[in-house]
Amino acid sequence: QGILERLDAGEVVIGDGGFVIALEKRGYVKAGPWTPEATVEHPEAVRQLHREFLRAGSNVLQTFTFYASEDKLENRGNYVAEKISCQKVNEAACDIAREVANEGDALVAGGVSQTPSYLSCKDKTVVKAAFQKQLEVFMKKNVDFLIAEYFEHVEEAVWAVEVLKESGKPVAATMCIGPEGDMHGVSPGQCAVQLVKAGASIVGVNCHFDPETSLETVRLMKEGLQAAKLKAHLMCQPLAFHTPDCGKQGFIDLPEFPFALEPRIATRWDIQKYARKAYDLGIRFIGGCCGFEPYHIRAIAEELAPERGFLPEASEKHGSWGDNLSMHTKPWVRARARKEYWENLKPASGRPYCPSMSKPDGWGVTKGAKELMQQKEATTAEQLKELFQKKY
Amino acid sequence: QGILERLDAGEVVIGDGGFVIALEKRGYVKAGPWTPEATVEHPEAVRQLHREFLRAGSNVLQTFTFYASEDKLENRGNYVAEKISCQKVNEAACDIAREVANEGDALVAGGVSQTPSYLSCKDKTVVKAAFQKQLEVFMKKNVDFLIAEYFEHVEEAVWAVEVLKESGKPVAATMCIGPEGDMHGVSPGQCAVQLVKAGASIVGVNCHFDPETSLETVRLMKEGLQAAKLKAHLMCQPLAFHTPDCGKQGFIDLPEFPFALEPRIATRWDIQKYARKAYDLGIRFIGGCCGFEPYHIRAIAEELAPERGFLPEASEKHGSWGDNLSMHTKPWVRARARKEYWENLKPASGRPYCPSMSKPDGWGVTKGAKELMQQKEATTAEQLKELFQKKY
Amino acid sequence: QGILERLDAGEVVIGDGGFVIALEKRGYVKAGPWTPEATVEHPEAVRQLHREFLRAGSNVLQTFTFYASEDKLENRGNYVAEKISCQKVNEAACDIAREVANEGDALVAGGVSQTPSYLSCKDKTVVKAAFQKQLEVFMKKNVDFLIAEYFEHVEEAVWAVEVLKESGKPVAATMCIGPEGDMHGVSPGQCAVQLVKAGASIVGVNCHFDPETSLETVRLMKEGLQAAKLKAHLMCQPLAFHTPDCGKQGFIDLPEFPFALEPRIATRWDIQKYARKAYDLGIRFIGGCCGFEPYHIRAIAEELAPERGFLPEASEKHGSWGDNLSMHTKPWVRARARKEYWENLKPASGRPYCPSMSKPDGWGVTKGAKELMQQKEATTAEQLKELFQKKY
Amino acid sequence: QGILERLDAGEVVIGDGGFVIALEKRGYVKAGPWTPEATVEHPEAVRQLHREFLRAGSNVLQTFTFYASEDKLENRGNYVAEKISCQKVNEAACDIAREVANEGDALVAGGVSQTPSYLSCKDKTVVKAAFQKQLEVFMKKNVDFLIAEYFEHVEEAVWAVEVLKESGKPVAATMCIGPEGDMHGVSPGQCAVQLVKAGASIVGVNCHFDPETSLETVRLMKEGLQAAKLKAHLMCQPLAFHTPDCGKQGFIDLPEFPFALEPRIATRWDIQKYARKAYDLGIRFIGGCCGFEPYHIRAIAEELAPERGFLPEASEKHGSWGDNLSMHTKPWVRARARKEYWENLKPASGRPYCPSMSKPDGWGVTKGAKELMQQKEATTAEQLKELFQKKY
Repeated sequence: QGILERLDAGEVVIGDGGFVIALEKRGYVKAGPWTPEATVEHPEAVRQLHREFLRAGSNVLQTFTFYASEDKLENRGNYVAEKISCQKVNEAACDIAREVANEGDALVAGGVSQTPSYLSCKDKTVVKAAFQKQLEVFMKKNVDFLIAEYFEHVEEAVWAVEVLKESGKPVAATMCIGPEGDMHGVSPGQCAVQLVKAGASIVGVNCHFDPETSLETVRLMKEGLQAAKLKAHLMCQPLAFHTPDCGKQGFIDLPEFPFALEPRIATRWDIQKYARKAYDLGIRFIGGCCGFEPYHIRAIAEELAPERGFLPEASEKHGSWGDNLSMHTKPWVRARARKEYWENLKPASGRPYCPSMSKPDGWGVTKGAKELMQQKEATTAEQLKELFQKKY
Repeated sequence: QGILERLDAGEVVIGDGGFVIALEKRGYVKAGPWTPEATVEHPEAVRQLHREFLRAGSNVLQTFTFYASEDKLENRGNYVAEKISCQKVNEAACDIAREVANEGDALVAGGVSQTPSYLSCKDKTVVKAAFQKQLEVFMKKNVDFLIAEYFEHVEEAVWAVEVLKESGKPVAATMCIGPEGDMHGVSPGQCAVQLVKAGASIVGVNCHFDPETSLETVRLMKEGLQAAKLKAHLMCQPLAFHTPDCGKQGFIDLPEFPFALEPRIATRWDIQKYARKAYDLGIRFIGGCCGFEPYHIRAIAEELAPERGFLPEASEKHGSWGDNLSMHTKPWVRARARKEYWENLKPASGRPYCPSMSKPDGWGVTKGAKELMQQKEATTAEQLKELFQKKY
Repeated sequence: QGILERLDAGEVVIGDGGFVIALEKRGYVKAGPWTPEATVEHPEAVRQLHREFLRAGSNVLQTFTFYASEDKLENRGNYVAEKISCQKVNEAACDIAREVANEGDALVAGGVSQTPSYLSCKDKTVVKAAFQKQLEVFMKKNVDFLIAEYFEHVEEAVWAVEVLKESGKPVAATMCIGPEGDMHGVSPGQCAVQLVKAGASIVGVNCHFDPETSLETVRLMKEGLQAAKLKAHLMCQPLAFHTPDCGKQGFIDLPEFPFALEPRIATRWDIQKYARKAYDLGIRFIGGCCGFEPYHIRAIAEELAPERGFLPEASEKHGSWGDNLSMHTKPWVRARARKEYWENLKPASGRPYCPSMSKPDGWGVTKGAKELMQQKEATTAEQLKELFQKKY
Repeated sequence: QGILERLDAGEVVIGDGGFVIALEKRGYVKAGPWTPEATVEHPEAVRQLHREFLRAGSNVLQTFTFYASEDKLENRGNYVAEKISCQKVNEAACDIAREVANEGDALVAGGVSQTPSYLSCKDKTVVKAAFQKQLEVFMKKNVDFLIAEYFEHVEEAVWAVEVLKESGKPVAATMCIGPEGDMHGVSPGQCAVQLVKAGASIVGVNCHFDPETSLETVRLMKEGLQAAKLKAHLMCQPLAFHTPDCGKQGFIDLPEFPFALEPRIATRWDIQKYARKAYDLGIRFIGGCCGFEPYHIRAIAEELAPERGFLPEASEKHGSWGDNLSMHTKPWVRARARKEYWENLKPASGRPYCPSMSKPDGWGVTKGAKELMQQKEATTAEQLKELFQKKY
């Protein structure tokens, strides 16, 4: 069954997690460029990560083609050993995803994301050509559907949807924005409306913000669609990092990005709460992005097992809400084998000198954070704003 | 060259990271029993993790035989699908480790760890027989050397060393203790002395405590050996979790163990500091335990690259101290492409209501923590102590 | 010169600090009832506090008549030794304030605050009679002007202004509200408009919220007045406690109220920042409320000394921005004798297990806090809301 | 009854709180020099603070003669308006203390503290002459007993005791040290022994450290005395600031000293716990130093009311463990009118960006803190140490 058949039937479809952050930690992706040449260089590593997500419950395996447009790969060319062609990277990504998808019950989704061309030239033809080139591979490899993801500007996202739509395959579109909207100030509701009008059957957000913030953005998208009397399925693939203190551009502006985000990583229990809230909000395509490891995806599948009627394979190695601790030798660890314990625990940082929150670099802080960082605005943020305005 | 030849020549030998925690998150190990039947059930997952550590710089691949003694596997039998025999688990572990070791320059170490038999019956013969059984597999598979690790009681560790020593292969021995010594109150210095006298050529600590605390314990071991005029190589394989607030039994007593430790995860920069301190202390077998992912091992290899003269393979996908950020599009992210930035950053928790530290369950808090948790002693700790004393 | 002459001339008028919290700590006021019978019981203690504020730079001494309406004093009668009459309390307050005002350059302001009668019966006649009774004392003692302060409902505040206005003396009116407005949902801008229309020449806020939040509320009042083309002087007397995490009813709903607020106390440097922001916002009557000790008032006077042209008397015992530390014996303490040090310091809590923020009791959390306490909403806040609705 | 009669009879004697910090906030003492010329300049302010402590339960009023030796006053001469003589400052201090002591049941104690002469010349004759000069005033004014307090070096403290002892009046001696001993490394136990041998009848600590740390130091003094088979009464007058993260020289080395210590202030409940622990440890002279306000002294008196049989006067304005909140209008504030609530509350900082702990300047960090600040040692602390060694 295709993605739309499943969603139309009311099924919960579980997405996968974030490849670039996970594979950076495993040694196969370089932070900064974040390009996916590992599909050619180390297919076994990409395959294994797909497999872990599949076992954890993913119904959709996205081809590892993030930032795999030709302009991006060339731009970062010096990082890519021996000129691996854009086409080769995209083809290998499709082959690996399909191979693993066949090991279980999963669909393969070909993915495109924002391009350097958009930011530098803004020429619609050039940008669309980049998407077209990737699409050709996806059609050749016959992926099941398409995802346009990680767009900061709805204009570019719409162009991507328009290109992908011509294939005749179902198109999902997610933006990496928060409740304040895209970088040009277009509100989440308006973004959703434009994407659906361009041809997307599924809309939502991915990356940049934590689960709570992302759900709020999708809620605003839903409102916008209702007001416009449009119908679409909703999708959410947030970070597995806590970012209540981040600015408009999300976790990228946090001082800890990308090499000291560890204390912000969500626990599996945080993700169970997210899955429940997403479900209650009417979202049926529920996955993750940067920071989501296989155990986070498993947490979604476990939380929604009552609705779905089954547990994922990897739950063989996991007890519900910690009940596998009931056989521990220490009585006080055994006492943790219950839902109330993990549900209510507030994890300590274990870092005596750490503050609870950061002050993001960049100036576009959210309203919630703004109230908490008045000092900031008068100092570095201002200077950065000036700096930024001079540069661009 | 064997392990002792390398160490005798003054080389830095880099160990690997923690398998049970990493594979639990990937969906192949069950928290609670923590047994390694994945070597038989999912060899590809175990192989991939070995490979990532190898690429990150590990010179030693430990067989994934933690808690693979027969008594432990039986004890947890209900978790193991379809009765996979102890021998099969151990043999598969050896085969996988050897296969990956052959892909690079690494030794295979067969490992044994503490047994349920010791705690329940304390009969030397029974306990030794368990080690003997695993040793037979290691000899058959011809591992390069042996490690007795994760012992809370030096008495049992000595028995393990005595068994392993008879093989004629070099023996390393590490205990999971802090500066206060083993569970019977034997000091780190005394533990080291007893282990060396029993035949260990390499001694140190693994697991249970963070890098700082573990280094202090090894320092005390070194002092003990010097006072006793004994010689041995030193080894350290700590947690990659910050645990300044834990008690005598380490991170197991922290309320966050094992499902909410995320905020405590060490950054790569924390690990570089650890590697430098370990080196300065004279430790030459430097690795990690629970929480150490491949990128943490790479951080050891990068920090000590000047001494070793080379970088690990995975550094192709990593810049020194973040210098791969120098091409980022945002000026304030580019400003993070330097050592001073990451070296001095204090990561925020991103959790507004989190306290910096936890109060450990269990009663054996360290002196450092004790000063910080006086209230605790008067409440739950006391009650737990009573509870514990009644039970044992 | 009277209060209006000063303000009309563009002078900065410095208010005083909070009496009930300061005198509670000194042993003369009981938390809970918070009534001011100390004016009769221990005039020397009230006099000394007035004097300290005068020395610190206060231009206005408010009579210590907070909660000194007859209904309130009777309500709390069991706390007041030997039936001290309402009239006696108010008269003594006037006498003490005048005595100290004569020691320097200060005005005496007679003050009324919200009444239990309003909450219980809401009969305009009864409520106004309570204010009238206090006003009679103020007229007999010939105070310089009048302040209606600490009102949660603008309706009652308007009644108070109407009563006070008939005296012919200038009237200031402040509400203890945040940016979300009064307890019936009237916005700050509308509150200001109603108060000015009722006859107040000076409007603003006092108590319940920290300086940052209070300034935002006054800013909204200013906008409201401008939109209505009304003119009035602005006034701000906030808490000297940090309350970014409080709800609609302010610090009263914080779990630490009133006996564990210590970690929230503002430093003198926080108050200097507040004074500067208040000035920049166009506020010219700048003082404090609960938590403001004499050194906080001195901080206002020191920050605005360039504008005012003089320092307060108590600055003889204080160096600007810590410069009196330049003679300290320890070099690293001497290094603190500079503005940059104190301006940028983020004070640690010194409490290893403290979270940065609290979850307030009561349900009316502000939007800023709401984003940070999603869990809360689903639990106790709901229950409290129910409880509250049943009770009232 | 004299101090020794009371203590010999087993009575609890309650000391007073800290004058310099309290009067700095009230506008009468200058931070840095910290000298007590206010006794002449503003006797009413000194008198009022004495009176508040008396009402709060103090049985001993110390003359406000801290740092009132001639060498110190001259040293800081530029701060003292118009050459107020050392004698005059000391005489006025005695007169004010006696006047207030007569209002209740309190003894007057004349106090001397460490001198600049000791640090600069170390000539026993010169240093003793400074103490002698103050003693002459105390004898003329006939104080009830004498306290030598705030000594960092036991050598100087011994000299002070020797001088004071010749008066024939009882002598108490307290040092401002932690568990690591005095600045020359003399342990608390040895300090106590030397002080008792020099003639002190009461020994203990004051200032520099928080209650918990100070109690540990007194415990070590007690052990030292027992080992030496010496008898003396024990005394404790700690800070009312939390300082778990401070170094050997106590709170002076914390970055927040002296103008941003607010978040560290102890609550009344913290002090009740301190009073109970002090009592259980056998200490019978229990008071406070810097940071102790009248309400903290009242907390001691209330905690030990069952043992003493009475409450202090100021408890008329205070309910036991918050029970005066039982009449509050809001149900959730009424719910705080019980011991369990305040006893278990962990106050939040209310400062989202504050770390829990500071890294002290100065190099002499305590062992507890050391474990938590390893980074520090490698950076500024080292540099400061060098700096310090060059200077001295």
